[in-house]
Amino acid sequence: MVYRKTNRPEQYNKKPVHGPKTSNKPRNLARENKLKIMVLGGLEEVGRNMTLMEYGSDIIIIDIGLQFPEEDMPGIDYIIPNISYLKGKERNIKGVIITHSHMDHIGGIPHIMPKIGNPMIYTAKLSKGIIEKRQEEYRQAPKLKFHVIDEKSNIKLGNFRIEFFRVNHNIPDSFAVVVHTPDGTIVHTGDFKIDHSPVNDIPADLNRIARIGANGVLGLMADSTSAMEEGHQISETHVGYEMEKIFEMCEGRIIIGTFASLLTRVQQIITIAESYDRKIMVEGRSMKTNIEIAHKLGYLKIKPGTIISSDNYNSRKNPDNKMVVIGSGAQGEQNAFLVRFANDEHKYLQVKEGDTIVFSSSVIPGNERTIQTLKDTLYRKGGKVIHNKMMDVHAGGHAKKEDLKLMIRLIQPKYYIPIEANHYMLKINGEVAESIGIPKENIFIGNNGQIMEFTKNNGKLTNQFVPTDYVMVDGLGVGDVSNIVLRDRRVMAEDGMLVVIATISNKDGKLIGNPDIISRGFVYMKENKKLIETTRMKIKKICEDNDTQSKAFDDHLKNKIRDEIGQYLWQQTKRRPMILPVVIKV
Amino acid sequence: MVYRKTNRPEQYNKKPVHGPKTSNKPRNLARENKLKIMVLGGLEEVGRNMTLMEYGSDIIIIDIGLQFPEEDMPGIDYIIPNISYLKGKERNIKGVIITHSHMDHIGGIPHIMPKIGNPMIYTAKLSKGIIEKRQEEYRQAPKLKFHVIDEKSNIKLGNFRIEFFRVNHNIPDSFAVVVHTPDGTIVHTGDFKIDHSPVNDIPADLNRIARIGANGVLGLMADSTSAMEEGHQISETHVGYEMEKIFEMCEGRIIIGTFASLLTRVQQIITIAESYDRKIMVEGRSMKTNIEIAHKLGYLKIKPGTIISSDNYNSRKNPDNKMVVIGSGAQGEQNAFLVRFANDEHKYLQVKEGDTIVFSSSVIPGNERTIQTLKDTLYRKGGKVIHNKMMDVHAGGHAKKEDLKLMIRLIQPKYYIPIEANHYMLKINGEVAESIGIPKENIFIGNNGQIMEFTKNNGKLTNQFVPTDYVMVDGLGVGDVSNIVLRDRRVMAEDGMLVVIATISNKDGKLIGNPDIISRGFVYMKENKKLIETTRMKIKKICEDNDTQSKAFDDHLKNKIRDEIGQYLWQQTKRRPMILPVVIKV
Repeated sequence: MVYRKTNRPEQYNKKPVHGPKTSNKPRNLARENKLKIMVLGGLEEVGRNMTLMEYGSDIIIIDIGLQFPEEDMPGIDYIIPNISYLKGKERNIKGVIITHSHMDHIGGIPHIMPKIGNPMIYTAKLSKGIIEKRQEEYRQAPKLKFHVIDEKSNIKLGNFRIEFFRVNHNIPDSFAVVVHTPDGTIVHTGDFKIDHSPVNDIPADLNRIARIGANGVLGLMADSTSAMEEGHQISETHVGYEMEKIFEMCEGRIIIGTFASLLTRVQQIITIAESYDRKIMVEGRSMKTNIEIAHKLGYLKIKPGTIISSDNYNSRKNPDNKMVVIGSGAQGEQNAFLVRFANDEHKYLQVKEGDTIVFSSSVIPGNERTIQTLKDTLYRKGGKVIHNKMMDVHAGGHAKKEDLKLMIRLIQPKYYIPIEANHYMLKINGEVAESIGIPKENIFIGNNGQIMEFTKNNGKLTNQFVPTDYVMVDGLGVGDVSNIVLRDRRVMAEDGMLVVIATISNKDGKLIGNPDIISRGFVYMKENKKLIETTRMKIKKICEDNDTQSKAFDDHLKNKIRDEIGQYLWQQTKRRPMILPVVIKV
Repeated sequence: MVYRKTNRPEQYNKKPVHGPKTSNKPRNLARENKLKIMVLGGLEEVGRNMTLMEYGSDIIIIDIGLQFPEEDMPGIDYIIPNISYLKGKERNIKGVIITHSHMDHIGGIPHIMPKIGNPMIYTAKLSKGIIEKRQEEYRQAPKLKFHVIDEKSNIKLGNFRIEFFRVNHNIPDSFAVVVHTPDGTIVHTGDFKIDHSPVNDIPADLNRIARIGANGVLGLMADSTSAMEEGHQISETHVGYEMEKIFEMCEGRIIIGTFASLLTRVQQIITIAESYDRKIMVEGRSMKTNIEIAHKLGYLKIKPGTIISSDNYNSRKNPDNKMVVIGSGAQGEQNAFLVRFANDEHKYLQVKEGDTIVFSSSVIPGNERTIQTLKDTLYRKGGKVIHNKMMDVHAGGHAKKEDLKLMIRLIQPKYYIPIEANHYMLKINGEVAESIGIPKENIFIGNNGQIMEFTKNNGKLTNQFVPTDYVMVDGLGVGDVSNIVLRDRRVMAEDGMLVVIATISNKDGKLIGNPDIISRGFVYMKENKKLIETTRMKIKKICEDNDTQSKAFDDHLKNKIRDEIGQYLWQQTKRRPMILPVVIKV
């Protein structure tokens, strides 16, 4: 594993470490009357997207997402953006704009909104519904305030005037943001693809995008997630054609795993199932919730009777060739439907011969092996798996190289700012822009927190940073898991630990009885009695060689136990368990 | 993560748990005079390949590999085959055949050979060299005995007569094994591809394979690793053409990361570098060792002066456009060259603007995220990365669907036994065979250890098993890490642990002083003083409510602390640290 050198996790809300000292109270107001853009998250990862724009004392926020933990962060649930820079500036925040309701754009809302004064959220109708529903899970989080927007909205937020245009993605109601400032216009695409034939959604309005471009755009911040891929992104409609082939072919049950948030996909499956006269069971809590909200708000078309609940499932009334199951878990997520289904842990449904399981999603890097195991289990029980390397049963939600070129050509920005991906993807996105004429010096490949400054007609990627250190969420704790805690978890995961307890008499400084040894995750103690016994004797000897009663002696003794026993166990086993010496004085 | 239900790790050399009781001493010798094939590893994973063939009392072994650990096995170095079935049968082992010298076919040798009486190893010249070199790292392992084979060898091992035919792979001297038994011939392909234009290797001898097939083959055991992929595997020569384009194009240094074991790739790079008048630096210990052995044995052609050592590297004498570096680490392996290079941890070489880094290997599932981080670091420092999704800079070493069909057509086996992959890949390989006419009932999709029986013209996949539980290697320990140890490691990795020490007076059973609390990996104690203090008070209360001096009381008290404190901390933090109560009686 490659441990990251940058971006060490730090405590929540610590003082900015490399933020400019002048930022809280500007000394020179005239000098501050320029546009500053700070991307707090999304320039070094796919996830925890959050962008600040500041003009004078006015601040707007675009998206507040979460990121799933890196591999060297055991036990961490997720990571949210670091908002240290906003401390003391809560009143300056004129609004929060949410481009669409995927977790990497909304996931930080319950934790962050109460800390920034719960400002108004500007977002589309469906996004509002999904954000509100999720907020219910956080009892202590405040009630959110919403202003619903669409392509006709024109909103004044302090120094900013905001418009929106439709883009396509894997969920309806995805919008790009047009931010007019006194010094020029910035366009933020959010996550986008260009789909001329989207499903149950309106195509990206190329004409309007062109008009916005014609009026002059200073900077374009553009999605880099699929910038490495050649060509155009597949249309959602094409996925439908492929899905139909599966429905045509299969005589057994069809089980489709996808993300609960891919609502356009869900619509496709529903429509096709209806045309093939199959009933649908929806499985997985988030899948049920999302479908319920989207349906209620008019974003899903479902005929009455199409969806049946698992309680009413009856294999005689609902034969296999008349059934479809839509469920979560195509990434092999523990406790998600597909995994419970594969492992016979679902109340009503088990894999059986004749089942066709469709993985209708991409594989998130890091999940490959888990998905392999899931496929193994499904095949072992007679299922057959179809995934997107075999058929186009998934269309990505992000612009590929040619889509990016189209957006750049229409917007004609002076500056180009790749966002929403790892560094190397940003660079490749930058190369795409360069290949069609954006000058290299006008392409800003920034890091999280790196301040970009714009004045009339001019932009600059400065060398100043606001803090963006990881804020980790673990259970109820937000930012309370430090680097030290993580390091200890990693050490114990690798080689376990050993607690050594020596009881020392206060009277004469002598060891009482034998030292106790407790080990976990190191060796199986029952089968390694000899090793434990020689270790105990070594500890005894260390204690006996050190009989003094001074206070400093305790630390000295502990260090000696840690060092010498650590070295001995390394020699014997080539393992380095964490050694915790405890000295009890009685 | 999906935890596997089968194949729980067990102690090394434990008694067979589901092996037939009659197996050690056959009661009916006539009944035993049939061929039994037991695949100990390679039917549920890519790795730890090992196959036993037994006829009467004679046993031969094909390959003794290792497997890299699953994601739920923190701290484990690797897994080797379980040889419980061979206990007491050491004298029956007539020989060990090694198809080629990749770790998933040779990695278990140092651990297993001394336990099975160190029988003769039959393998090709290069494989012998590599196995011998690796053996030097294991001081206590015995000196191995070798019999070098080639395509002309014809060896009698008890009831077995063994021949070999050449196949292609990513390392020269890869052989398939033809095992003639009194009841018929079994062919074991080892890892193979069909390459009509291999590099520095002899093409698979299709003519000879056809002749073997013409003489009648009872069973074909065939590599399934790339059975999911359509078409034919790419020829190594094609990779050369692509590599040449990179050499043509690049004006800076070219750094190529690949596996140390892909010796055909290394040959390509050397030849191309020589034709472009570039010098080569070889980096990474295993890379250096393999090149040295292969060169010494005549398997690599290198002109004198082509390779320069890093000590002699001089950026004036060796300008960037005259340099190539070949190194290990294209999987992002910690401590491997490419990672040290990226992180400025290499003595002489650092990434710089103008470097082109070629990842000339496939991505092993599970490494995707680590490789992304590596790419990020390389791009951040000015490097550019080329990988096999952009250009054909890698050719797999395994047969794709069409290659498998060719092998089946030539061998014309009665029975087909997919090997060397996860279960779902075996199934897909089986479907390939079925698609060209092998009857479904003659295709054996087995599990590790599942006994296959063959008599003249007839084969059967029985429901009997020999043990194949995981044998894990962790440091010097082989098989001493149990399920319990692993479970503890996982728990501590997730939420850390808490040691609670209560000192109780022997006189009156009363608590002395305050209980001690030590925690690691749970919360940062300095910032959670209040939580720790309330926890301490709770423990104190538990101890005071339970003042009795009986022995049973200790366990009762410990359980009470574990349960009540565990529940309290879950409520407060939604984390479940491991709680270790210690009661000291003085």
